[in-house]
Amino acid sequence: MNATARIEPRTLKGFRDYLPEAMIPRERLIDVARRVYRSYGFSPIDTPALEYLEVLTGKGGEETDKQLYRFEDHGGRQVGMRFDLTVPLARFVAQHINELGTPFKRYHIGTVWRGENTQRGRYREFTQCDFDTIGTLSPAADIETALVIHDLLQAIGFADFRIHINNRMVLTGLLQKLGLAEQSTAVLRALDKLHKIGPEAVADEMVAAAGATKEQALQVLKLAELSGTNDTKLRQLEPLVAGSEIGQAGVARLSEMLAAVRAAGVTDKRLELDVAIARGLDYYTGTVFETFLDALPNIGSICSGGRYDNLAEVYTSQQLPGIGASLGLDRLLAAMEELGMVPKVSTPAEVFIPYFDAGRLQDYLRLAAQLRATGLGVEVFPEPKKLGQQLKYADRRGFRVALVAGENEFAAGTVQVKNLAAASSVTASLTDGAAAVITAIREVLAK
Amino acid sequence: MNATARIEPRTLKGFRDYLPEAMIPRERLIDVARRVYRSYGFSPIDTPALEYLEVLTGKGGEETDKQLYRFEDHGGRQVGMRFDLTVPLARFVAQHINELGTPFKRYHIGTVWRGENTQRGRYREFTQCDFDTIGTLSPAADIETALVIHDLLQAIGFADFRIHINNRMVLTGLLQKLGLAEQSTAVLRALDKLHKIGPEAVADEMVAAAGATKEQALQVLKLAELSGTNDTKLRQLEPLVAGSEIGQAGVARLSEMLAAVRAAGVTDKRLELDVAIARGLDYYTGTVFETFLDALPNIGSICSGGRYDNLAEVYTSQQLPGIGASLGLDRLLAAMEELGMVPKVSTPAEVFIPYFDAGRLQDYLRLAAQLRATGLGVEVFPEPKKLGQQLKYADRRGFRVALVAGENEFAAGTVQVKNLAAASSVTASLTDGAAAVITAIREVLAK
Repeated sequence: MNATARIEPRTLKGFRDYLPEAMIPRERLIDVARRVYRSYGFSPIDTPALEYLEVLTGKGGEETDKQLYRFEDHGGRQVGMRFDLTVPLARFVAQHINELGTPFKRYHIGTVWRGENTQRGRYREFTQCDFDTIGTLSPAADIETALVIHDLLQAIGFADFRIHINNRMVLTGLLQKLGLAEQSTAVLRALDKLHKIGPEAVADEMVAAAGATKEQALQVLKLAELSGTNDTKLRQLEPLVAGSEIGQAGVARLSEMLAAVRAAGVTDKRLELDVAIARGLDYYTGTVFETFLDALPNIGSICSGGRYDNLAEVYTSQQLPGIGASLGLDRLLAAMEELGMVPKVSTPAEVFIPYFDAGRLQDYLRLAAQLRATGLGVEVFPEPKKLGQQLKYADRRGFRVALVAGENEFAAGTVQVKNLAAASSVTASLTDGAAAVITAIREVLAK
Repeated sequence: MNATARIEPRTLKGFRDYLPEAMIPRERLIDVARRVYRSYGFSPIDTPALEYLEVLTGKGGEETDKQLYRFEDHGGRQVGMRFDLTVPLARFVAQHINELGTPFKRYHIGTVWRGENTQRGRYREFTQCDFDTIGTLSPAADIETALVIHDLLQAIGFADFRIHINNRMVLTGLLQKLGLAEQSTAVLRALDKLHKIGPEAVADEMVAAAGATKEQALQVLKLAELSGTNDTKLRQLEPLVAGSEIGQAGVARLSEMLAAVRAAGVTDKRLELDVAIARGLDYYTGTVFETFLDALPNIGSICSGGRYDNLAEVYTSQQLPGIGASLGLDRLLAAMEELGMVPKVSTPAEVFIPYFDAGRLQDYLRLAAQLRATGLGVEVFPEPKKLGQQLKYADRRGFRVALVAGENEFAAGTVQVKNLAAASSVTASLTDGAAAVITAIREVLAK
């Protein structure tokens, strides 16, 4: 093939390849999420990347419609690529609810596509990692959702994080009391910016965009002035919603939830009543969550969600309330990298066996098989190159241990177990299923 | 919303939803594949679902080009959805080879799309599960590929399977000797059908489609007559390729490979020299693999692959030889279902806790947390419905154990541990971190 006929190897704008160094922590994070979701009885599902266009359009707002990848397929059908996992979930549940039964608890980890403006640093292809409980109004599902978020972050390796909890009923009640029920969307949109732009700018926006009076805006902003422990805040909240049935019910729900989550072993500092979070517009109706890392509060919420009244009304007459949340995979990975929580390795295996003695391939393969049987990851270099060259390769990839065996070692029935980071080594016997080798490897890995 | 405005919830033709009962074994299979690939030091990568159209077209033949999902994106680019993971791998390796270094061992588990004719029972969206070693000509990589296939099938739970091995150099040598080198594509295409249509029909096709003489066809078909153990077949093969350097080299490679795979602990009956497999057309140049289940030979190969000389010549001048194979996920799942290897469950958790006593939610949550900490999957029903109704739910989902605790049990500090399949139960104490409960659960699960 001549050079002019070659095609330049490149990815589309807004798309990216994952090399091993990026993919290994990504897979690990997805594994942890899957394990935690499963430990609560959430089941995996999957849906197609492509859907009938009519299933997708008009569900995520005008902006999302514009970003939709859409085309005509071979059969002349108008199709689109899914832009989130919530719209497909609604379609899925409406289609299969009789078979699924309720409550239906599912997780879904999948790729979604949006033709976003890449100037904002956004990608056009990303992974979502959602879990939801469909078909129950019970507060137990809300409590469980908080516990899942908690266990998830703890399992990933975070110690210092805060799950912010609110209940939209509190906001609804307060706005009704203040005569702002009609303007609630605009008021809540402003309130959602509190942590970003501060109370004065929020009050200005409530006046300008929502048509609230200055006095009404200040009343809403009293929510932002609650302080102290969660219990203190609850007591401060009561007079603000006094007289509003829905507002009081919201406070009662929050109170029940905080008590139950605490009883299940979550420490108070990881759970924060935050009546300023509203999470967007009309979708959520009850409990809402956002989750922040103490070390990096400015990256925003890394796990968010809430309760909704009716998931699938576009597709079915059956009322399907639910609650769920979504782990922000990309944001979380960026945070973990910034916090030095991601080891720089490009191999998932721990042990490297150089192909040192050209006549001994079968021995290396046998040793590798023995180690793998105990759960170790082992790579045998495929070519009998110079040892130094092979060890350089092992170093660059991030292996922890190398097992070096040449003529002398084989004659003595031993192998050198090298700790690659410490540049130290011990000699271990190959007898007895390489038991001593395995012990020596485990010692290095435990360090 | 009125009913006429509703959108029918449906999937596109050739696409399917995965409900939990189908997705749980699917995830398990992918998990096993990932674990085995990793244990050999293969690293995960991912590439975009969408590529520049020019990257994809002309790589998989005319048929594949026709099946390609293609469209113009928001920026006026001609794009396509990947139809396999090999073309993206070639583009990926050409683009990043300096950063990756060689040998480069990767696995890639991802969704691909083809606008196939669904009448053949094909789906338009499916998962591929590939692993490859790039950048080395060493036979050690070929041997390792066979070992990975072996460990993979064993880890999935198969005992009786056969990895068929051949080397294209043997065929090349034989065809050169017979003066059929020019027609090799058509000859090998016919030969590949041997297991399906038998030797006579293959001979006819070699004459009709490849322009071979009857005598030449019969000479090629001598390959199909080899019989006995692998060693016997090797001896029978030698005279057929005598005088052809490439053919003899192929036999030597096969011989080395069979010896090394045996030395690594693979029993002879799982490895079969099968000189009739050619695996398609021009792509493979050395070792080729196909894998069959003894119980279901007619479903075809469930794991196939081979060695190629130059992966990425369309994208780079760098010569990148490699070897790899692909696990046929859908075919394998269908086989496992047919063989009764897939338990019919729609929950990934083992333990079910009915929300029996309406005032005891916190106790149920605490118990669930204790069990989860030991690695058990536990679902707490979200509503305090009648016990019978909750146990029916647990049965339908496929939980193994239910922990029933009402007023009496809490008063006594105990819980009933019910074996749902056996409809039997024991009483266990809740003291000491529910240690006795955990022991009783493990006993049921071990059955």
